[in-house]
Amino acid sequence: MRTVMHCTAGSASAQRRALANAANLLADETLDLEALAVVFNGDGVHAARADAPVADEVRGLLARGPEEDAAPDAPLIEVCACSNSLASRGVDPDELVHDVRVVSSGMGELSRRQADGYGYIRVP
Amino acid sequence: MRTVMHCTAGSASAQRRALANAANLLADETLDLEALAVVFNGDGVHAARADAPVADEVRGLLARGPEEDAAPDAPLIEVCACSNSLASRGVDPDELVHDVRVVSSGMGELSRRQADGYGYIRVP
Amino acid sequence: MRTVMHCTAGSASAQRRALANAANLLADETLDLEALAVVFNGDGVHAARADAPVADEVRGLLARGPEEDAAPDAPLIEVCACSNSLASRGVDPDELVHDVRVVSSGMGELSRRQADGYGYIRVP
Repeated sequence: MRTVMHCTAGSASAQRRALANAANLLADETLDLEALAVVFNGDGVHAARADAPVADEVRGLLARGPEEDAAPDAPLIEVCACSNSLASRGVDPDELVHDVRVVSSGMGELSRRQADGYGYIRVP
Repeated sequence: MRTVMHCTAGSASAQRRALANAANLLADETLDLEALAVVFNGDGVHAARADAPVADEVRGLLARGPEEDAAPDAPLIEVCACSNSLASRGVDPDELVHDVRVVSSGMGELSRRQADGYGYIRVP
Repeated sequence: MRTVMHCTAGSASAQRRALANAANLLADETLDLEALAVVFNGDGVHAARADAPVADEVRGLLARGPEEDAAPDAPLIEVCACSNSLASRGVDPDELVHDVRVVSSGMGELSRRQADGYGYIRVP
């Protein structure tokens, strides 16, 4: 199965809980998870900045994917940030954690993923 | 694809962000969006009142649909308000923005739409 | 159709609104609902405690299912609590309302249900 998580929370504590939700999903051994995408929009995009209080958690999440750790059966993991939200907050894509993907819109990405069969969870 | 957005926020600022989320989805040219429904329930139903601070944004959203602007390829756009929430708040359907649909229940509408293939996004 | 509701709210008032959302879905006679699952995670798990302010509403919800009231066409109703959230809050499964199911993870349960065709609603 595949899951997309949606985080729009601006506080570091809520962002941390959202990332813990993602970690809990990955840790659930009763599931056969193929892919996890976390989409940040609104004030949530600050979580994806390289200097964010939760940047290490974002990096840790991305490091769980197959490219990073070379585990062939690891789920695909993507972290996405909404370009509209970045622009309106004056955040340059260069300021984001490496490997965070900038998407045309958070709303579009959430719609597209679900049309592709992902389940949706609002976090935290 | 088709998307249903769910807004239960009572403050005008949060409602405005929810309607901006809807506008951002419509503005995303990388998508082929067939339909967008925005369902207001709980305190969110106040957003659909004709005298709401965000009434112009609701009207503007509805004006993006095919009936209003005669653009044959515009997505179908619907704004729905939960009848239970209206009744418990003493809001008469006559007080709503023209073309807002009153639905039997917000929960039922959100369930039905997803059973019909819509993706779900909680906003804002 | 089948629906899974997701509640992470810690306050009794928000939990009560979430449970009212569930009741409103069950009361909507325009729907053919086969199953409803309510998943509590985070601080939401406190709602499932036998001594919670909303415990009677949880019991009332479970009593709407086919096993309890012997109505053969009643929808299947399940209330689930995240084991991670229980453990981190020091809540023992024995402290929960009877018939609440402890699930490996709230995130996993929400993913699994959607992969099985359930629609998702964040409540309240």
